[in-house]
Amino acid sequence: MTTGLWDRETFAEKLRAIGVRAYHDKHPFHVMMNEGQLSPEALRGWVANRFYYQRNIPIKDAAILSNCPVRDVRRIWVHRILDHDGVGHPAGRSSCDAGDHGLAGARHSTEGGIEAWLRLGEACGLSPHELLEDRHLLPGVRFAVDAYVNFARAQPWPIAIASSLTELFAPDLMTTRLAAFEKFYPWIDPGGLDYFRRRVRQARRDSDEALAISLEYCNTLELQREAVRALGFKCDVLWAMLDAIHQAYGGSKAAAP
Amino acid sequence: MTTGLWDRETFAEKLRAIGVRAYHDKHPFHVMMNEGQLSPEALRGWVANRFYYQRNIPIKDAAILSNCPVRDVRRIWVHRILDHDGVGHPAGRSSCDAGDHGLAGARHSTEGGIEAWLRLGEACGLSPHELLEDRHLLPGVRFAVDAYVNFARAQPWPIAIASSLTELFAPDLMTTRLAAFEKFYPWIDPGGLDYFRRRVRQARRDSDEALAISLEYCNTLELQREAVRALGFKCDVLWAMLDAIHQAYGGSKAAAP
Repeated sequence: MTTGLWDRETFAEKLRAIGVRAYHDKHPFHVMMNEGQLSPEALRGWVANRFYYQRNIPIKDAAILSNCPVRDVRRIWVHRILDHDGVGHPAGRSSCDAGDHGLAGARHSTEGGIEAWLRLGEACGLSPHELLEDRHLLPGVRFAVDAYVNFARAQPWPIAIASSLTELFAPDLMTTRLAAFEKFYPWIDPGGLDYFRRRVRQARRDSDEALAISLEYCNTLELQREAVRALGFKCDVLWAMLDAIHQAYGGSKAAAP
Repeated sequence: MTTGLWDRETFAEKLRAIGVRAYHDKHPFHVMMNEGQLSPEALRGWVANRFYYQRNIPIKDAAILSNCPVRDVRRIWVHRILDHDGVGHPAGRSSCDAGDHGLAGARHSTEGGIEAWLRLGEACGLSPHELLEDRHLLPGVRFAVDAYVNFARAQPWPIAIASSLTELFAPDLMTTRLAAFEKFYPWIDPGGLDYFRRRVRQARRDSDEALAISLEYCNTLELQREAVRALGFKCDVLWAMLDAIHQAYGGSKAAAP
């Protein structure tokens, strides 16, 4: 009996319980951000460092694709790369006719989430150049994000997919964050908040897909347990990023929130 | 002077020279195929074994994406995965609303090259099941294809991209092959030849893109030399596949063509 599979509801409940316990919405720096307590410098520090996470997401998802022999799963997973990178030849750099692409998604150039985040940076006073050169990147943030990418490369693909399930908790966080930014940080150009707006919808779809795949392909008790641990690991990644950012930009507010 | 870069024309010429020397259109088994000398059994053996190559292409291209930090390159390269895998939820297996996808390419389900190859198999009398289970896969073919995927995982991404440049020589081969199949193997349902038809166009676009990327990013003499070697390696992969297939299915025709 102890070696039997958890049923789907039990497994899903154990995954959700990780979020209740460890998702980064409860990190002191995140609480301060949503309560409007961050200085412009601290907010810019968060935006600049979080960009390193954003820019590595397609690399991480391509690693999962590359480890996954199940075409049906790849056909679903690939849209994450399109969503973050965008598709098509960048304007003015085309070396051949982009209109010749065989698939609808590649027929034109579409903005991805990484470009949307660069616009968030600009709305906060950070140039795309500063972000693309990782000029403000903290070592602790780099190590945490690199650990996540390496996890996706090295782990069995259903476990790497389970680690993405922090998206289960993201829509609520994004909705709260969007309201907080509009209320407390009016110095940020509202057009820069598009990334959060689109992610509310995307994260819901993405987590539905990732949860369905995890429930189907984590089909031994050991894989189910690994999946729950993987989600805990991913929460640690997000938490460690905020630890490093808090340490660098939080100052005395961190000690006495 | 010997340590300076080759100019673009010299570099491109050295790449093309590899194809003239080593591309698999000159392999005895391939010559026999295009001269109409293959038995149905040998042709089926080729289709079944070549399928292992086809099904690994998206895995290989995802490995390249995952190694490539240049978003502009990823935005171009990703369409290869879409072209081979197709995109979207397979019919009847959708666990969420595929219509909610944010990008045009993911809004609907699109057939990829792997499905087209399965239809080629059916047109030859091979069930999708036989191909998907690798029932006819020869060890030599498996080793060659796996070597190619591992090369893409392990090598710097511009070198892995250069290894794909056998596509420079593919459109001519596909055009010749299509005519040969229609002329010499009328027992194959012509609808099954769609894969070759679409690849004439796709391979031209793909090789234009891959050549432009190679010329831009193989920007040291050492990288240029590695790129030429990588293309030679890729020709060896295709050649070794035909060696194994020839050995298994070619019989006495191989010894005395």
